[in-house]
Formats: sequence, structure tokens, C-alpha cells
Amino acid sequence: MSVSTVAADQTVCAPLPVLGRDVTVPLVTGGEVTYAALDYAASAPALQRVWDDVAAYAPYYGSVHRGAGYLSQLSTDLFENARATVAEFLGCRDTDQVVFTRSTTDSLNLLARALPAGCEVFVFETEHHASLLPWQDARVTYLDAPRSPRQAVETLERALAGRDPHGPALVCVTGASNVTGELWPVRELAAAAHAHGARIVLDAAQLAPHHPVSVRDLDVDWVAFSGHKLYAPFGSGVLAGRADWLRAAEPYLAGGGASRRVTRRTDGGVDVEWHDTAARHEAGSPNVIGAYAIASACKALSEAGFDALVARERYLIRKVREGLADVPEVRILSLFGDDAPRVGVISFVVDGWNSSHFAAALSAEYGIGVRDGLFCAHPLVRTLLGSDPQTQGECGAPEAAPGEKSLNAIRVSFGAGTPDEHVERFVGAVRELVRDGATWNYRTEDGRCVPDTSA
Amino acid sequence: MSVSTVAADQTVCAPLPVLGRDVTVPLVTGGEVTYAALDYAASAPALQRVWDDVAAYAPYYGSVHRGAGYLSQLSTDLFENARATVAEFLGCRDTDQVVFTRSTTDSLNLLARALPAGCEVFVFETEHHASLLPWQDARVTYLDAPRSPRQAVETLERALAGRDPHGPALVCVTGASNVTGELWPVRELAAAAHAHGARIVLDAAQLAPHHPVSVRDLDVDWVAFSGHKLYAPFGSGVLAGRADWLRAAEPYLAGGGASRRVTRRTDGGVDVEWHDTAARHEAGSPNVIGAYAIASACKALSEAGFDALVARERYLIRKVREGLADVPEVRILSLFGDDAPRVGVISFVVDGWNSSHFAAALSAEYGIGVRDGLFCAHPLVRTLLGSDPQTQGECGAPEAAPGEKSLNAIRVSFGAGTPDEHVERFVGAVRELVRDGATWNYRTEDGRCVPDTSA
Repeated sequence: MSVSTVAADQTVCAPLPVLGRDVTVPLVTGGEVTYAALDYAASAPALQRVWDDVAAYAPYYGSVHRGAGYLSQLSTDLFENARATVAEFLGCRDTDQVVFTRSTTDSLNLLARALPAGCEVFVFETEHHASLLPWQDARVTYLDAPRSPRQAVETLERALAGRDPHGPALVCVTGASNVTGELWPVRELAAAAHAHGARIVLDAAQLAPHHPVSVRDLDVDWVAFSGHKLYAPFGSGVLAGRADWLRAAEPYLAGGGASRRVTRRTDGGVDVEWHDTAARHEAGSPNVIGAYAIASACKALSEAGFDALVARERYLIRKVREGLADVPEVRILSLFGDDAPRVGVISFVVDGWNSSHFAAALSAEYGIGVRDGLFCAHPLVRTLLGSDPQTQGECGAPEAAPGEKSLNAIRVSFGAGTPDEHVERFVGAVRELVRDGATWNYRTEDGRCVPDTSA
Repeated sequence: MSVSTVAADQTVCAPLPVLGRDVTVPLVTGGEVTYAALDYAASAPALQRVWDDVAAYAPYYGSVHRGAGYLSQLSTDLFENARATVAEFLGCRDTDQVVFTRSTTDSLNLLARALPAGCEVFVFETEHHASLLPWQDARVTYLDAPRSPRQAVETLERALAGRDPHGPALVCVTGASNVTGELWPVRELAAAAHAHGARIVLDAAQLAPHHPVSVRDLDVDWVAFSGHKLYAPFGSGVLAGRADWLRAAEPYLAGGGASRRVTRRTDGGVDVEWHDTAARHEAGSPNVIGAYAIASACKALSEAGFDALVARERYLIRKVREGLADVPEVRILSLFGDDAPRVGVISFVVDGWNSSHFAAALSAEYGIGVRDGLFCAHPLVRTLLGSDPQTQGECGAPEAAPGEKSLNAIRVSFGAGTPDEHVERFVGAVRELVRDGATWNYRTEDGRCVPDTSA
């Protein structure tokens, strides 16, 4: 297995302080241990800085927009400044809109509802369900999983070449896989899309927390991400990019804030004039705290510096991959191979182990929180496991029996708040579990894998 | 003007502690004063208890659902327990679903997308835009503003009598007006709806923070409310009620969490099996903190006791209404008259005053935060002002010049966290402003009314 290019003795920055870093959890084997949160790809802990900013603001919270009071005006400014901070963080063009949504899923559903009539959509089967599924009202072409970044570009180009070049089209692609952590060739895919008159939206849910994302440099038309993966778990997300499709679309939600003027007609009906700014798609009272938290995280990451964050993450990735390479029973799932650049998201299976039992043992016996399952990317995980789609388990369904071929996988993921000790404990635990077996048996109860204390 | 039935000397409970109660703001006339947040109807401050619960939980935040770690399982339990707490708070039937949304607007848009084919919708023109506008893809009958609760029921009955009794129909009605604070005859409207084979959804955004709401007792089919008006401003809302239409509908958002199983077909397409629980409409990582905050608020209000809260609020309402009654230039806006039961939401205009200037003076010279405008209920406010719809200003547009007929109104609103001093200061300020005029002149700048410091 190849490793990242950071030398073993290179100094890397300290982890950024996050909430929960001192939380201890009980072990089924007795005693307590500090919790090792290694499920960042699902949801990351809040940065301490984000929490402190939210806590400092919370007493000043007020209704936004038409509130005449001091706190209302302060909150309105803070909300609109958060939009500007996000635009800067994403390297947006001056004409781009930044819409606050509730998550990446919400952002991509919003864009799906803003597609022009007759729009074709092109999406790889390897996408997270959030980017795979919102397009079902359009004509969707699902592209087979590529086995290299180059093949991804070629696959897209081939598909786009066959389309009606005069109609609207959208390509949706992830920046970093939520299963393999591998980076996708976004700039090249954007160039291919544009060469064929298509637009492209970047699902940066897994990319933005780990790498700088520039709408301008990547030349993507939109980018979507979630606060809760960006160390700001307060219910907000972002869709940022070209204003034209958004302005032309029906409002995502109908209600106050999106409507500029509502009048009763003489025939009894109701006429509505909608805003054509970001407010058009933000009806209802905005999640001011959520937006502010995202802006705080954007500032914190920018100030820490992505060069340092990336270097530290490469160092942690190398620790994990080198550690797992010493355990022959472990098979890491990969589309693009060992040398592919990646973020701190690694999925694997362990020969002879039910993945859910393995994940449960990591939690119960080592205080390590990972994830097992199909990671809301069912087609991709099945492709990676090489298994028959028809026999595959559902999310939350019981795993294969021990000894059978794994139907699910285990995912370990980390980021800016992860200390060395967490990944070291993880690697040691994998080694011990494979060598010595788990101390307890595990069984599935209410869809959850738990130590079998009935014996 | 009649007053509520609480005697002047009756002991009422103390306000519940809220964030921001000690925040001071500068006055344009010099010095500082504690901020009087009197815009609860737009968004209420967080209860101290809600904040404390969120702060205590935040270090334990973890990814929910398939996370195998201790904090993931704790967070999953807490999220699902929040659902149960809300169901109990709302007096839901055992078969009801509680869906976490982002706001009342979001909840009603979700229900609008879950309407059966051919569904007719009946809605009064007096509704907030959140309940007036989401239905535009259905056949909507807009009902004229009634001038009494009885007339509301009669108007609805007449409209329903004319409909196809075999097709599906939905009535959408507010529990308490966001403009007048007046309570609507929800139980009677529900009975009328059901008698004609229609269903009913209650917009409880303004009701739930002030009064107990029981789905069972009111016999409504759904209820919607927002966390941010219920002292839990963390980006979550609720739609609770009948499961059948929700289960039969396309998922509100397409993505992970809502999908049980996603498979690639041999023809290259993608098949999706969706959940039929609340998760069907909650795709994406849920706003766990938002849901937990709502549950905390539900518990806090229930423990404080609505009897005591209602008694206190009536006492505050009486203080304001009696105070304003002494100022003949003030006209309170009302549909149902002085005797109508109401929550702490009072809108008014002041003869000879531009409403925006008046609201700006309350803020700049008294540190009081109210709201001016049309309150996202344009048809209702125009009806109450008796003005020509075609000449009415937009939200955020400049007001009429001083001395002209008011195009907007002023709204004062309060709730469980409001101390006596805030409403006393408000009444005194209104009296002073009307008697002595404002100390400063005000002008509109960037859609905001500010002291004119250029003179």
C-alpha cells in the first residue's frame, strides 16, 4: 500500500479543539475511556470555536428581516454577513447566490426543483443518495462506476456526447466519496460538462470540511455542503452558485420571506410576486444560528489554514492505512486505487467478520465510534463489495451471519478535531480484534448491534 | 375596551428565564437600557432551560441512525425521544406521525406536497403566507375574512357545502392570528371540515407557544409549529398528524435516511424503496440539536404549566390593551372585536404616524424591539387597515409619508419570558411618543428605518 507524501517525522499541526473531546464512555469490558469520534463523514463534532461563537451570539438572537429592534437588526446583519462569509469561503463569483438550506440533501433537492424544463441529468452510480436520488423527475442517465479519475472523465464525455446539445443538462458529482474518501476530478469533469453545454453541481459535503473548495477555480456552476459535516451541527446547509436557474424557478418553499407582495384578486384568487434574490428559496424564518455557525466554521477553517489541515489529515490517513495494511484480513474499499488522493474517510471489510459486529465491538470494547452499513451509497458499496445487488441487505437490516460474505462495510472517518490517539487506538483495536476476537458476542436488537449480555 | 378576566391584584407567575434578558442596547438619546424583546410573534428568545439542555448535550452530539458508537446511539435515542416528547406535548393519537421539519412554513409545504390527487384546499385570506401560499398546485378556495368566530365557521361550511363530497379536501387554519393574536374556533372548524368529509391542518405557530394544543381534543388531522417561536430557535419545526397521506406521498426530500434500499436495475436505471415512517420525509442528516431543543421547550412549558402561563399572558395583554386604550390616537387591529380571546400579539396603527418611524423610535429611543410591516399576512393587514390593495406597500418598501394614511402597521408581541417592565416601558413609550413626538427624525435607508443623524 502506498502512503501519503508526508514524512513520518514531519511536524503536523495540532487538532482543532472540538466539543466532546473529553467525553468518556463506559466499556462493556469495564471502566471508561474518552470517546473516539471516528464517524466524521456522517456528522462531525462542533468546533469549540463554533460553539463559543454560537454561545456568545445566542443572547443577542432576534427575529430577522422586518424586526425594528436592535437585536433584530443585529441578527439580520449577522445572517446576511454569514452569506457573504460563505461566498468568500467558497470562492464564489460576484453574481452567484448563496442560499441557506438545511443540508446538502436539501440543497440538491432545491436545485433539482430548479431544473429548466427538459433538463437531462448525468450522475454516477457511485454518488451518495443525496446526489443520486433528487433528479428522478428529470431524464437521468446513471453512469457506471469508473475505476480511475480518467475513466470518470471519459465516461462522462461519452455520455454527454450522445445528448441533445441544445437542451439544458446538469452533471452532479461528489468532490470526495463518502465511502472511499477518494477525490474526484472535479475540474476535469466541469470542463467536460461545459464543453458539452452542460452545467455541473459539486456535492462538497465530504470535500469542504477537508479541502479548500473554490467555485471559481474549479469552474463549477453550483456547490452544496452541510454545516453538520463542517463542524457546525446546527441544522443548516448551503447551495451556492449561478443565479439564473434559481431565479427562474418556482420558490422552493411557498411562504413568508420568499414573497414580496401578496394580493387578493377581484376574482377571489391570490397573486404573489416572489423575490428573485436568495430569499426566493428561503421562505419561513431562517435558521440564523445555523447560518451563523456555518460562517463561524468557515472562518475557523480558513484561519487554521487548509495547508496545515490537509497536511495533518494526510498524516492521520497514513497512520490508519499503514496500520490496516499490517492486518491481512482487512480489505480497504477503493475505486481509484491506493495512490488516489483522498480525505479521511476509509471503508473496509474484515475477512470472517460481520461488519456490524466488528463496529459494535469497536464501540463497546474500545470506546471508538465508527459506522457500519451501506453509507447511503448502496450501489457504490455493492459494486465495491462485488456482491449481488439482489441479495444485499437494507440499511439497518441484519448483517450476514459471521463467516458469510460481508453484505455491509465498516467506515472510519476523521478530520480537523481528531487527535493522533484516536486513530492509534483504532488501528490497535482492529489488530487486537482480528487477532484475539471480541471479548463479547454481539447480536442485533431493534436494528442495533449490541453486546449479548444474556449469556 | 374590555379586558381579560384576571383581576388586577391576582398573583401571576414570574416570567420564565430566557436568554438575552440582561442584554443592554444603546439609545440614540444616550446611554444604554436592557433590551425589551417584544417581537415574540416573529421569533422568541430561547428559554434558558432550552439553552442549558442544548449546551449540556452539545459535547455528546454524534451522528444518528447507523452510527455504531456510543454517542451516535445516545444521539439517535435522544432524537427519537424528542419525537415522542413532541407527540405527547401535542396530544397526538397513537397512529400519528411526528415529522421534524425546519419550520411551520416547511411543515405546510410538506403537507401541500402530500395532498392526494384532486384535493381541494380551503383557506381564509387572513392566514399568514406560510399557510396561505403552499397550496397553489391544488384547487384552492380563498375564503373572505370573517368578522367573528361564528362567521368563520359559517363561511367554511358554506364553502364546503359546494364541493364534490367524494373528493379529498383540506382546510388550513391558524390557531391564533399572527396579526391580531385572536384565537380561531379550531374545534368548530374541525367539526365542520369533518362533517363535509374534509380534513384540517392547524397552523399552531402562534398558538403552541401560548396555549396547550391537543390534536386529539381539537380533533384536527395535522398540526404544524416552529421551534423558533416556541423558545427553541435552532432551525427545527414539526408536522404531526395522520400518517396515511404522508405515507402515500412521494418523499418530501429525496436522499439518504428516507431511502430503505436503492438498487441499480439491469437496464441502467435506479430503483428506490422508501421508508414509510416519518423518516420518509426527513432525508438527510436530521437537525438533532433543533429537535432536542424543541423537545426541551415542550417539557419546560408543560412543567411550568399552561394554566399559569396563560394567566400571566392575559395579565400582560390587559396591561398593554388598557395602556393603549388611554391613547386615542392608537387603533388596535381586530377581526373579532375587543372581547375575543387572544394571545400576546397586538397590532396597531397610530394616527399621524408612519408605522415604520414609530417602530424605529421605539427601538432607538426606548430599546424596545417590535415589528412594523404587513407581517407576512398581506391580505389580512390590508383588510384590517381598510386600504386599497393596489396601493399597498410591499414588505420592506418605504412607508407612506408622515401624515398620510398608514400602509403598514406596528406589532407588539410577547410571551413566557416577558417581564412586566417590558410591557410597561412599551405602554409608557407609546404614550410619550404620541404626546411629545420622537426626539429624532427617522428615514429609510437600505429598507431599514434609522435615526436621521445627517441633520
